[in-house]
Amino acid sequence: MPTFDIIGFDADDTLWHNERMYAAAEANFIDLVANYYDRQSISDRLFETETRNMRTLGYGVKAFTLSMIETAIYLSSGKISASEIGQIVQSGKDILESPVDLFPHVAETIPLLAKSHPLMLITKGDLLDQESKLIRSGLMEYFKYVEIISDKNTASYRKIFNRYSIDPDHFLMVGNSVRSDILPVLELGGHAVHIPFEITWAHEVAEAPADDHPGYYTLKNMGELPGLLLSLSEKN
Amino acid sequence: MPTFDIIGFDADDTLWHNERMYAAAEANFIDLVANYYDRQSISDRLFETETRNMRTLGYGVKAFTLSMIETAIYLSSGKISASEIGQIVQSGKDILESPVDLFPHVAETIPLLAKSHPLMLITKGDLLDQESKLIRSGLMEYFKYVEIISDKNTASYRKIFNRYSIDPDHFLMVGNSVRSDILPVLELGGHAVHIPFEITWAHEVAEAPADDHPGYYTLKNMGELPGLLLSLSEKN
Repeated sequence: MPTFDIIGFDADDTLWHNERMYAAAEANFIDLVANYYDRQSISDRLFETETRNMRTLGYGVKAFTLSMIETAIYLSSGKISASEIGQIVQSGKDILESPVDLFPHVAETIPLLAKSHPLMLITKGDLLDQESKLIRSGLMEYFKYVEIISDKNTASYRKIFNRYSIDPDHFLMVGNSVRSDILPVLELGGHAVHIPFEITWAHEVAEAPADDHPGYYTLKNMGELPGLLLSLSEKN
Repeated sequence: MPTFDIIGFDADDTLWHNERMYAAAEANFIDLVANYYDRQSISDRLFETETRNMRTLGYGVKAFTLSMIETAIYLSSGKISASEIGQIVQSGKDILESPVDLFPHVAETIPLLAKSHPLMLITKGDLLDQESKLIRSGLMEYFKYVEIISDKNTASYRKIFNRYSIDPDHFLMVGNSVRSDILPVLELGGHAVHIPFEITWAHEVAEAPADDHPGYYTLKNMGELPGLLLSLSEKN
């Protein structure tokens, strides 16, 4: 079994809560637009708008907010009021200004692992938002490297591996998204720990690898990571 | 005189047009809101909103679009229509989807300089938008390094210098913004070439250094850069 030269961590919904703030904003959005349109279809239409806008607006809160506004105008046939649109803008800003709420065990595990391994944060979304959350999380000092990228796929991981001269066989990625954190890393010959979170954004849904896929591990929470690393190093 | 280990370039309004698209969007915005509010004050109020939102929303088209929407709702006292807000959203998306229009001499000068120096793009704004423009510009292959950052100040340049082990005395930055491209680089002991552009965003306005400030040069256009580098190297 390998030792790891670098351990990569996803941020949103791996280190701290994120999706539940979007879910809350979306619930408020549905309540608002339900005055104008069939409640059951609002979420689907928002998802369609987000998907269509992805290429131009990318990921993150600002893209989400603009997609909510566009959807509200469309579904209300232009009848939604300016003050209701103002509430949508504010709900986006509320997400950006929310306190950073760490997942259980993160506050102890990250400093512990930073003593034995260089840690790299690899995240996508709004540049300023991600930087600001990292600062507010109190974890910044433990990450030797920070990579905020526009999308997480094999090409973007390959770029990071080249940039830092990382041998994938000595790289471990930890994250909650099978699609963004697990599959591309395994495909490049790296190792990946999946720590599922109860809410997965529809864009991130993907089929998990087989349980016995080489280099693939699943854990219940971050507190189990040091034990996994120890058991892997003992197999060396 | 020094030789340069790396030449850094700003992107927006240094390599390609940017501000004039914002200016056009703002002109349309003023026409729209002038139905509800004194035309003369609209621009000031938009600037105030952008400034207030800067800390949360950062730079870039999506932040600008959300600030326009917020300003329109406020100045119309909530009377602006959903379809007018839809036009504002569309004007932001239009900026993001505009073709990349290179400045004169850029298409020849960048490939020429890339033969003799490693080039680094240093830009701020939306991650995806900046990456997309670099790809569409046709210049990507000439930039050995790309740094998209959330703000350009002495701290962020210092971080880049550390990351790439750059000696500021052997670093030259080229850009149109005195505030973002020139002053912080000179402050750190680097060299900087100012190529002014006719429109400067109010946030970027700053007093230029004295003409005889060490390491500070001004040029009329990018076509003059190879000549400047030649004359500096001859003084060695």
